[in-house]
Amino acid sequence: MAMSYRLVYWPGLPGRGEFVRLVLEEAGVAYEDTAAGEPQDAIQAVMTVLSSEVGAPPLAPPVLQVGSLQLAQSGNICEFVAATHGLVPLDEGPRALARQLQATVVDLVAEAHNTHHPVDPGKYYEDQRVEALAAAKSFREERMPKFLGYFERVLAANSGDWLLGAAFSYPDLALFQVVEGLRHAFPLASERVLTDLPAVTAHHARVAARPRIAAYLASERRQPFTEHGIFRRYPELDG
Amino acid sequence: MAMSYRLVYWPGLPGRGEFVRLVLEEAGVAYEDTAAGEPQDAIQAVMTVLSSEVGAPPLAPPVLQVGSLQLAQSGNICEFVAATHGLVPLDEGPRALARQLQATVVDLVAEAHNTHHPVDPGKYYEDQRVEALAAAKSFREERMPKFLGYFERVLAANSGDWLLGAAFSYPDLALFQVVEGLRHAFPLASERVLTDLPAVTAHHARVAARPRIAAYLASERRQPFTEHGIFRRYPELDG
Repeated sequence: MAMSYRLVYWPGLPGRGEFVRLVLEEAGVAYEDTAAGEPQDAIQAVMTVLSSEVGAPPLAPPVLQVGSLQLAQSGNICEFVAATHGLVPLDEGPRALARQLQATVVDLVAEAHNTHHPVDPGKYYEDQRVEALAAAKSFREERMPKFLGYFERVLAANSGDWLLGAAFSYPDLALFQVVEGLRHAFPLASERVLTDLPAVTAHHARVAARPRIAAYLASERRQPFTEHGIFRRYPELDG
Repeated sequence: MAMSYRLVYWPGLPGRGEFVRLVLEEAGVAYEDTAAGEPQDAIQAVMTVLSSEVGAPPLAPPVLQVGSLQLAQSGNICEFVAATHGLVPLDEGPRALARQLQATVVDLVAEAHNTHHPVDPGKYYEDQRVEALAAAKSFREERMPKFLGYFERVLAANSGDWLLGAAFSYPDLALFQVVEGLRHAFPLASERVLTDLPAVTAHHARVAARPRIAAYLASERRQPFTEHGIFRRYPELDG
């Protein structure tokens, strides 16, 4: 199906927009990415979309515009693109299992963000550093092992290469990206955790080797992590 | 379609399980609710389902068992039941808008939980009371008005009674329940915010008056909030 896609997201950070980009890239569809333009234009595109008054306006980016349709919430957008381009089974049962796995990655992403913003997402990290030390310790020692250990269990319970077993689906891309982010933000702690998780580690390499993903990762479209957004490398939070 | 539903959730708190119950009740389907049994049996049911090794095992309750299918993540379960029983359009566009709205309620629920557990979801509230005071202040003054104001905007942008406009759909139940929870946990702060949000307030009453929901709310199946779970009335956090 030929559709025109326009991704609206903040410039200068991969953030939650990157989860959407990976699905668009794997789907092999063309899309405009506002974050690739001049930063002030990209910020203006976000502001414009947030103030729009169509049926269900977005609360926050990323936003995907598909013709006259405008969608927010990263996991939701990923499922929409996946359902349109064959990256998820359309039977309600397996489709719901994929959605469950995606939602669990979304939860992990939110908890990773909470490590540097435990008290107030609207204030600076520098205003909540003491609380962040405690939140990051709990994340490193309890939450990250719990979540990544869960995905190890899911992969180990399957006989196939992917989270749903034999069939690749969009949450495979989400797990790949959250591991990328955790390796950036918590290089020491994530390495300690991943050492004991061979299935997650192998899965990560398997996603990176998919032809369209490998081409994307090698392209200029792939943005590096920065000290903005979800995954920030603050050495004091890595233990 | 005749299905056998079994909801597995913690006893003694409505929690995230309640979002699923409301959709099952509105769908008018029979379901077993493990939380309605003896507490020790209910806890055992949760433990059993968390240690199961089917395709995509759950990380946390609520879990809905549907024949041999086992689903986790509250928003995901709600969508599955809604798609099966006509509580959401099946066209991918409006279906994604409903999913976006549900995901935004799920985010608000997580932020409400964060007010009493800002540093470590695995520790007691009493161990993070100081940080909770700061997190709750930000929630009362910034986040709750932002989220509820967003839903006011969505309802105001529509000409109909519901979040999607003319068609009732499952996120209407989620918005109803999160308002219930916020009124319980933050009676003063939520009242201040809702005074300025006539569309959300009217929507809440409209959902409560739906025949199946009204019957459910008057029944013994509806559980009161307690000082466990997401929505806890700690007066010091209400400002």
